[in-house]
Amino acid sequence: MTDTTTLTPAALLQLVEGIFLNAGLAPVQAGPVARVIVAGERDACKSHGVYRIEGCLRTMKQGKVNPDAQPELTQDESAIVRVDAKGGFANAAFEMGAPVLAERAKALGLAALVINDCTHFSALWPEVEALTAYGLAAIAMCPSYATVAPTGGTKALMGTNPLGFGWPRKGHPPYVFDFATSVAARGEVELHRIAGKPLPEGWAVDANGAPTVDPTAALAGAMLPFGGHKGSAISMMIELLAGVMIGDMTSPEALEFLGATNIAPRHGELIIAFSPDRFAATKGGVDLSRAEALFDAVLGQGARLPSQRRFAARAISDAEGITLTADEMAILDRLQKGGLAAVS
Amino acid sequence: MTDTTTLTPAALLQLVEGIFLNAGLAPVQAGPVARVIVAGERDACKSHGVYRIEGCLRTMKQGKVNPDAQPELTQDESAIVRVDAKGGFANAAFEMGAPVLAERAKALGLAALVINDCTHFSALWPEVEALTAYGLAAIAMCPSYATVAPTGGTKALMGTNPLGFGWPRKGHPPYVFDFATSVAARGEVELHRIAGKPLPEGWAVDANGAPTVDPTAALAGAMLPFGGHKGSAISMMIELLAGVMIGDMTSPEALEFLGATNIAPRHGELIIAFSPDRFAATKGGVDLSRAEALFDAVLGQGARLPSQRRFAARAISDAEGITLTADEMAILDRLQKGGLAAVS
Repeated sequence: MTDTTTLTPAALLQLVEGIFLNAGLAPVQAGPVARVIVAGERDACKSHGVYRIEGCLRTMKQGKVNPDAQPELTQDESAIVRVDAKGGFANAAFEMGAPVLAERAKALGLAALVINDCTHFSALWPEVEALTAYGLAAIAMCPSYATVAPTGGTKALMGTNPLGFGWPRKGHPPYVFDFATSVAARGEVELHRIAGKPLPEGWAVDANGAPTVDPTAALAGAMLPFGGHKGSAISMMIELLAGVMIGDMTSPEALEFLGATNIAPRHGELIIAFSPDRFAATKGGVDLSRAEALFDAVLGQGARLPSQRRFAARAISDAEGITLTADEMAILDRLQKGGLAAVS
Repeated sequence: MTDTTTLTPAALLQLVEGIFLNAGLAPVQAGPVARVIVAGERDACKSHGVYRIEGCLRTMKQGKVNPDAQPELTQDESAIVRVDAKGGFANAAFEMGAPVLAERAKALGLAALVINDCTHFSALWPEVEALTAYGLAAIAMCPSYATVAPTGGTKALMGTNPLGFGWPRKGHPPYVFDFATSVAARGEVELHRIAGKPLPEGWAVDANGAPTVDPTAALAGAMLPFGGHKGSAISMMIELLAGVMIGDMTSPEALEFLGATNIAPRHGELIIAFSPDRFAATKGGVDLSRAEALFDAVLGQGARLPSQRRFAARAISDAEGITLTADEMAILDRLQKGGLAAVS
């Protein structure tokens, strides 16, 4: 007798997409949202896997995402490709914009994709990874909602503001990183609270701005940026470029709009794509083996490349299927049968 | 009797430019190099001030920079502006490229300036700040030479790889940051060695890859990235984008080329400029007051904006002149009279 269920990625995708369709999410959005959730499970990246479904449905139930939105792409002679998500999930907007961004980056050397007015729950790594498949390098960033104090400060102002980067490799999965610019993701603080464990020092301040290792006090206060004032500065850069510059919400504005942090935030996203072929054209073309020499040197001294564990998990999932626990299967079953009514 | 000398910024510029001209640096390079050094002194940013002159001259004396180089700009229909520094200092290449980059960024929304084959001693903040004067936001990055181990590793591979960012403000100096992606600049380790003080934990590993607080052991070993694996990943991104992608040296290649770390490194640089006006055009134009609300919130909770101290020092220098110590004046005098022969 087993308490786990193993599904192919395709079967899990059908199941997850069905839950969203059943809950009333338009087909143009349900597929892209489900693909990102299944990619998370496949890569053993649980923080963006099956457990995220309920948060997406809760965002729908509270009317904070437009389930009928049809994203709209506009383009001009500039290097900026824009997709208005029209209040829908970011994922459909990204899938619509990515091929156009790739075409512009190849034509101009670099280009930007601006996603406006989207509800965002996705990790950035599926997006930068998708762009590496076009032979491009890419940087992605977005605000979140105000849960992080600036270094030297006492109150939540910035979001966990993720930064993602991808670089294309031949014969290997791409070089990809994607991390919160807070010292830890909010989910990790939550996990410490549930486990009754103190936080490491330097993660958070309490509601009075004093350093704390108490997860409950931290959730009522603010998290801190990674890397001190340097990480704090990068987080602010993300507010400016992927908030103010693209005419979309900053993290404090997003929190005010939502009034809660247990639903997906509304804001925009900025993705910059680079064509290494085009950049190095005047230097005899890009020599990707020089990047490989760097990666070999990292691995040769016993250090890791980012996403290495994720790609290893993916290889197993692709060969053997994705294994879900009985609890996870119960969640899927409950959400499939109950739709939005089953969402707390 | 005083042991300090106060000069106007203009007088110091004339003095420093004269030293470089006298040492045989072409006028097209001497002005831009001197302007950056004087900007460092003016802003009380001593790490890029007068004490850098001798390192620049040493690089000339050792034949690792081309003093006669005339930088060459090329442009096509893409968003990439290229300046070949032809082995000269980066500063002249930047001054040549900046107005063309600004024009392209305003036309296309974003654009890149690639500086190839330059000798680099400059900070990045004068460059991103110069671009904010055009109403642009800008990111600048470059490799260095291999002195930093990847997180989890034991040997120098990456450079101190600085990252700079600028955002234009109205009625205030711009929001500007510029920092090494190592936990500390190499010069700070050197200062600890001279002062006979141990390093803070987490700054460095020794030649065997073991953590050390001994500055001499650290200089023989490797520094560590800021912010653990996140800073390490950003440093690698800089090697890839501003090294491999632009067809110029990575930090290990630059170290091999030079064979020393006491002269300025040879490599390239990547600067990306964004037009907030153009990005926000479809959202009614950029609302810079929303950025000001973020800055006010930072200051309002007692935290600082990056570069705040630099701009305060600048205001004093502009009003009262730049004050140099007797030692600093002696350096200037020695280098002015002795030229390259006075350089150790």
